[in-house]
Amino acid sequence: MRLTRYFMPILKENPKEAEIVSHRLMLRAGMIRQQSQGIYSWLPLGKRVLDKVCAIIREEQDRAGALEIMMPTIQSSDLWIESGRYNDYGAEMLRIKDRQDRAMLFGPTNEEMVTDIFRSYIKSYKSLPLNLYHIQWKFRDEIRPRFGTMRSREFLMKDAYSFDLTKEDAIHSYNRMFAAYLRTFSRMGLRAIPMRADTGPIGGNHSHEFIILADTGESEVFSHKDFVNFEIPGIDTDFNDVDALKAIFDKWTSVYAATSEMHDEAAFNAIPEADRMSARGIEVGHIFYFGTKYSEPMGAKVQGPDGKEHLIHGGSYGIGPTRLVPAIIEASHDENGIIWPASVAPFDVVVINMKPGDEACDRICETLYGGLTTVGKDVLYDDTDERAGTKFATADLIGVPVQVIVGPRSAAGGEVEVKDRKTGQRETLTVEAAMNRLAGR
Amino acid sequence: MRLTRYFMPILKENPKEAEIVSHRLMLRAGMIRQQSQGIYSWLPLGKRVLDKVCAIIREEQDRAGALEIMMPTIQSSDLWIESGRYNDYGAEMLRIKDRQDRAMLFGPTNEEMVTDIFRSYIKSYKSLPLNLYHIQWKFRDEIRPRFGTMRSREFLMKDAYSFDLTKEDAIHSYNRMFAAYLRTFSRMGLRAIPMRADTGPIGGNHSHEFIILADTGESEVFSHKDFVNFEIPGIDTDFNDVDALKAIFDKWTSVYAATSEMHDEAAFNAIPEADRMSARGIEVGHIFYFGTKYSEPMGAKVQGPDGKEHLIHGGSYGIGPTRLVPAIIEASHDENGIIWPASVAPFDVVVINMKPGDEACDRICETLYGGLTTVGKDVLYDDTDERAGTKFATADLIGVPVQVIVGPRSAAGGEVEVKDRKTGQRETLTVEAAMNRLAGR
Repeated sequence: MRLTRYFMPILKENPKEAEIVSHRLMLRAGMIRQQSQGIYSWLPLGKRVLDKVCAIIREEQDRAGALEIMMPTIQSSDLWIESGRYNDYGAEMLRIKDRQDRAMLFGPTNEEMVTDIFRSYIKSYKSLPLNLYHIQWKFRDEIRPRFGTMRSREFLMKDAYSFDLTKEDAIHSYNRMFAAYLRTFSRMGLRAIPMRADTGPIGGNHSHEFIILADTGESEVFSHKDFVNFEIPGIDTDFNDVDALKAIFDKWTSVYAATSEMHDEAAFNAIPEADRMSARGIEVGHIFYFGTKYSEPMGAKVQGPDGKEHLIHGGSYGIGPTRLVPAIIEASHDENGIIWPASVAPFDVVVINMKPGDEACDRICETLYGGLTTVGKDVLYDDTDERAGTKFATADLIGVPVQVIVGPRSAAGGEVEVKDRKTGQRETLTVEAAMNRLAGR
Repeated sequence: MRLTRYFMPILKENPKEAEIVSHRLMLRAGMIRQQSQGIYSWLPLGKRVLDKVCAIIREEQDRAGALEIMMPTIQSSDLWIESGRYNDYGAEMLRIKDRQDRAMLFGPTNEEMVTDIFRSYIKSYKSLPLNLYHIQWKFRDEIRPRFGTMRSREFLMKDAYSFDLTKEDAIHSYNRMFAAYLRTFSRMGLRAIPMRADTGPIGGNHSHEFIILADTGESEVFSHKDFVNFEIPGIDTDFNDVDALKAIFDKWTSVYAATSEMHDEAAFNAIPEADRMSARGIEVGHIFYFGTKYSEPMGAKVQGPDGKEHLIHGGSYGIGPTRLVPAIIEASHDENGIIWPASVAPFDVVVINMKPGDEACDRICETLYGGLTTVGKDVLYDDTDERAGTKFATADLIGVPVQVIVGPRSAAGGEVEVKDRKTGQRETLTVEAAMNRLAGR
């Protein structure tokens, strides 16, 4: 992408409405724009990151055996009356009357609708297990939306729903998502710690929030330091292997970890002091086994091997991509701007032409831009007439992992400078060597 | 994907609510499910097709220089009051009050919001041309939604918006989208005819509906037969070449084509009778140059090369992916079901195991399934215990382009049958030959 043909409205000033660094950087880098309170547009740079985040989520959901569908945003109130949640859900639910005066709503979540899909088609245990997910816009009319897309009213959510014959099977489905989530966040350069969450009347210990550590986190968290070294499930994980997945769950829940709501001071103090970790965290995912909470009121049953009807056991599994993007920034930035992990970077490389119009600079930049694009790299080519300082500041701000600086003096000698955004290390290379390095050859 | 682990709820009976063949086949193949009147969920098979349709749209928008963003579904009424459309838009607009009692709405289209984005950042003609698009859910509360996702209330739309300094530049932006649309529909196996549409008070001849011919089309259309042979712009089209794009526009608007609303009986009758074509059509896209219609009330101006402020000239360009899916089916099916063009097929190949449990059948099926998946093919593996007749009927119904039939007799001899869904032709091949053929080697 040539920057002269791109739309990346960089802000020079720090926007005063932004209270946290990710919100400030997303606005300054031209990633998002607020349209109404807590409602955002994603501009081209932000959209690219959001897409990469969603692609990783999707790959790991698919790997774990979940199937992607797409449920609508607008729901009828009927299903919610059936489940008993229509009145429970307060002013956060955006209630709507359509032209026929029917009570509709903008879905804040989809347990009811997906249960309705399930009961309409699935009649036998032979069709189980089943896990359906979608990545769709949700709306929760928060009284105080803030921190940009970290806590917005309209937000993107990946929500998966599992259906099983028995509690035991449902726990396996839960463990699948547990392992998938560990892989998902890890691939985005995040270390997420699963922390026990409140299960309310359901009971049991199968509800976990996945929390990443960041100074600006909304809640205080307490955990054992060992988490930092636990191994992430590999790409060869067999998601059908019940024991292997249980082992992953057991390992990752073997030491203390709790949010402030679930904190047990005594248990925490039982950890040797040197192993205690108390920090602030951001919730990036939540998984929950809720048994027959929805299947019972909504009559979602299947015939079991015994020929009898059984209420299905369910769970739900959420990740908020529009919240993950700022969470990644909170975890990875410096005073000059964002530092994207390569897996979610909007571009792999930015090629900076220090003197457009200079024959050698133009030629080398076009060679690198064309060549790297051809081998499938996402390349941003800064072909603008801005001053050098502005170009460097922009490249640092938007956080592309590698910068290639093409200045007239070194260009004349067939050389370019390659800078690593994270370490700041610069290296002078021939054009060919730079091309080979960046193409991953 | 193993069918035993997939969710593809085939209906045996013809659903009586479906009036047209695409709606009937989408329900029967388990692609969609109605959740409320005119509001649909996309089940896994449907979601796959929808994704492939969107991917083609996206590629061609990007190729033509448009930039992808993502605007929210919920908009404030303020912008619509500013443009003057808040009261003009009738009961089709879903109006919402949020918890602060602010007037919001579910966007039926985004001219206002994108103009607001534009005016917030772009101050100079040097940033032009600009074309921003998104693929986002829209809601229009039609009084009579029907024909499945062909005319639904909640629907997906790709809407692009161009911004230019002058009318002349805007016409070039229009021609870019004109050529991009021809390529887009052609890649989906559709021949779309651009037909002049009403420009209302804007005037001029830069509004075109793209219509595909289908017996079940909603409107009558009239055109010259030559359209059938016009050349589609190639992949090497230079979207920056003003003259080349104008030549494409001129060629494709050189002979008569009109919907019934714009029909000119005399002009049509002037065509030699043998060259006249009158048929029914489905609108799959609409492009429109609207000049300063939104920039004027909303004050979207840039500084020109003359140092003065100029209202920008705009256009909008829409394609409905959730409508394209049934449109493709209307254009491509037979009495047994859907016949997907390869570019949008949910799977490239279906491998049918005629006797699961038979050692040779299982081994050959696993070889083909694994091997083809490894080379990047989307493969559905029918590993179910259904009867042969049911398996064949399902494969035909869901319209996967190639079927590989693995029966015990031929499997014992190391052979399989390859069937072309469209022609019905069957051929017996060795496993290796089938693999090479299907892998495209």
